[in-house]
Amino acid sequence: MNIKPREEVLKMPKYDPPLEGRRGKLRLDFNENPIGCSPKVIEMLKSLTREDIAIYPEYNKINEKIANYFNVSQNEFLLTNGTDEGIKLIIDTYISPQDEMLLPVPIFSMFEIYASIIGCQISKILYNPDLSFPTNNLLKAISARTKIIILANPNNPTGTDINENDILKILKITNKKGIVVLLDEAYYDFYGETFLPSINKYMNLIITRTFSKAYGLAGLRLGIVFSNSQNIKFLRRVLSPYSVNIIAVMAAMVALDDEEYIKKFSNMIKINRNIVKRELEKLDLKVYPSHTNFLITDFGNACEYVEKELKKRGILVRNRSNYPLLKNCLRIGIGTEDQCEKLLQAIKDIIIKWRKNH
Amino acid sequence: MNIKPREEVLKMPKYDPPLEGRRGKLRLDFNENPIGCSPKVIEMLKSLTREDIAIYPEYNKINEKIANYFNVSQNEFLLTNGTDEGIKLIIDTYISPQDEMLLPVPIFSMFEIYASIIGCQISKILYNPDLSFPTNNLLKAISARTKIIILANPNNPTGTDINENDILKILKITNKKGIVVLLDEAYYDFYGETFLPSINKYMNLIITRTFSKAYGLAGLRLGIVFSNSQNIKFLRRVLSPYSVNIIAVMAAMVALDDEEYIKKFSNMIKINRNIVKRELEKLDLKVYPSHTNFLITDFGNACEYVEKELKKRGILVRNRSNYPLLKNCLRIGIGTEDQCEKLLQAIKDIIIKWRKNH
Repeated sequence: MNIKPREEVLKMPKYDPPLEGRRGKLRLDFNENPIGCSPKVIEMLKSLTREDIAIYPEYNKINEKIANYFNVSQNEFLLTNGTDEGIKLIIDTYISPQDEMLLPVPIFSMFEIYASIIGCQISKILYNPDLSFPTNNLLKAISARTKIIILANPNNPTGTDINENDILKILKITNKKGIVVLLDEAYYDFYGETFLPSINKYMNLIITRTFSKAYGLAGLRLGIVFSNSQNIKFLRRVLSPYSVNIIAVMAAMVALDDEEYIKKFSNMIKINRNIVKRELEKLDLKVYPSHTNFLITDFGNACEYVEKELKKRGILVRNRSNYPLLKNCLRIGIGTEDQCEKLLQAIKDIIIKWRKNH
Repeated sequence: MNIKPREEVLKMPKYDPPLEGRRGKLRLDFNENPIGCSPKVIEMLKSLTREDIAIYPEYNKINEKIANYFNVSQNEFLLTNGTDEGIKLIIDTYISPQDEMLLPVPIFSMFEIYASIIGCQISKILYNPDLSFPTNNLLKAISARTKIIILANPNNPTGTDINENDILKILKITNKKGIVVLLDEAYYDFYGETFLPSINKYMNLIITRTFSKAYGLAGLRLGIVFSNSQNIKFLRRVLSPYSVNIIAVMAAMVALDDEEYIKKFSNMIKINRNIVKRELEKLDLKVYPSHTNFLITDFGNACEYVEKELKKRGILVRNRSNYPLLKNCLRIGIGTEDQCEKLLQAIKDIIIKWRKNH
């Protein structure tokens, strides 16, 4: 007899397998670091021994380093197997089927997927048409059932940020009601503003960070969840004891030591982001403001054509047309000066070709 | 205001942090591979590039290799972040709070922890006093609420196996009732018998395997969940898309190619296990039968003393006294001939010293 999954699992959307075969291409589609991590991480990998990887991971040293680096105490964060596990952990710890999640959309898709495993109510609040954050609509949507609000600052895939005062307003109201605020700061390194110093002021604030973007370690899977020590104590009960692999740990040790590398990389991305935006605008394309390492650009009817033609030239970008508000939009990652030049030249050629025929 | 976790989380046992500082010791306490993985894995690590680790993991090649190696189709398994994630995934997919888990004890502790996150009823069935499997008591315990039965063959920490006919009897009865049978074969490589060819005969059978034991890759976190394609389809909906890191993937590619290494290692462990058992018995110690890479040995009142004295000599073993049926028992891992000699010499010295004074 077939074994029956939980009702919530039966209702879940079908599996959409991750994309493959991206090596060797100009990867501007997943908001990764397109040149990679600090070279010192690669040096470290060469020194790994059989003992290093035969032992279940140990976390003492990395916990010490992270506490120092982010200026928090060791019981105010925990490491997760990418931010994905962090999000799932927060939902598993706090959310019951009868609860409600307020989810501004469009947003990173894993929030909805993990919430649908639990089977809680997911109430979506649409971003404003200019992709600015819908603060008032979000506040109006809070109900007696609301248990968690998702904020991403800056947000993927919109690229836009949330005004500091708006976050404060949300935190103050939700803190009184005991509503969890999950603030994802995955793109912090390209932005520079953080609520990390507020984790002990707002007891309902939980912040996630990742090593998958600026740090160039997406393949190793490492995220951090920050909150006050009381929340972390509960989250730790639900966390698997060995969920972060030892190579992610050792790579993060080295990467955090090479702070200069991340700073230089992030600065380069910010400069190149502005150049690419300006050049795309010269082509009469609508480019939304961005505080991340990507640009949302509206290509109108040419959207799919541009995506495919770029792919033919070995340049990968992400078509986000199926997302609310993002019809005809491509999400385009920012890389080095050379990578941006290659991208811009290709887009110009493609657009000129398209306009000749339309 | 403090945010309140789910009731089930509040009831969970306090966090017991993993042990640290085990490097450089003779590690016979976690059933790891005490000499490590195939040297070819270490060679592979030296060739890793920044691109390898900057990209979100891709699984096509490893899925192909695993399908071939284990003679299953690509939709009959999935990779997990260690067996830990596999167990959690199975529970998250199939078990609701109103369900019952039948759990033979003593057993690997994560089954109970993940079940208690869900808050389902956990009904424990005690192993027999000789640490053989309590088949009849288990079958008698099946109720209308039973949704999952955990089997570990061979089992940690008892070291004992389950008779093939008993497993068949359990599978036949549970298959008719739609009860999930989670069969953990983590120690398969030291045992040699598997129900993998039966995943399409018993639709309720889900099998887990790990690269943390014989393969010597505990630090990298890689497990496999096998079942029929219908079950895997549902499990995949709940699985995080990038939960396995790329280095675990690349290491497994190399490790599976070096089949000879695992065979030689497992054979060595089996031979040394018998030698250590015989030598411990010569000291008038009760040693339970084992089909794994460890031996459960009853040290009577000397148990804690032996554990501590071994630790002073840099030899780590695991005191399992707090587990049901295992009062005064140490779980002792098996290593190379040299490692076993060192262990036995130390135990002999310690026991002689103890007996002089007691």
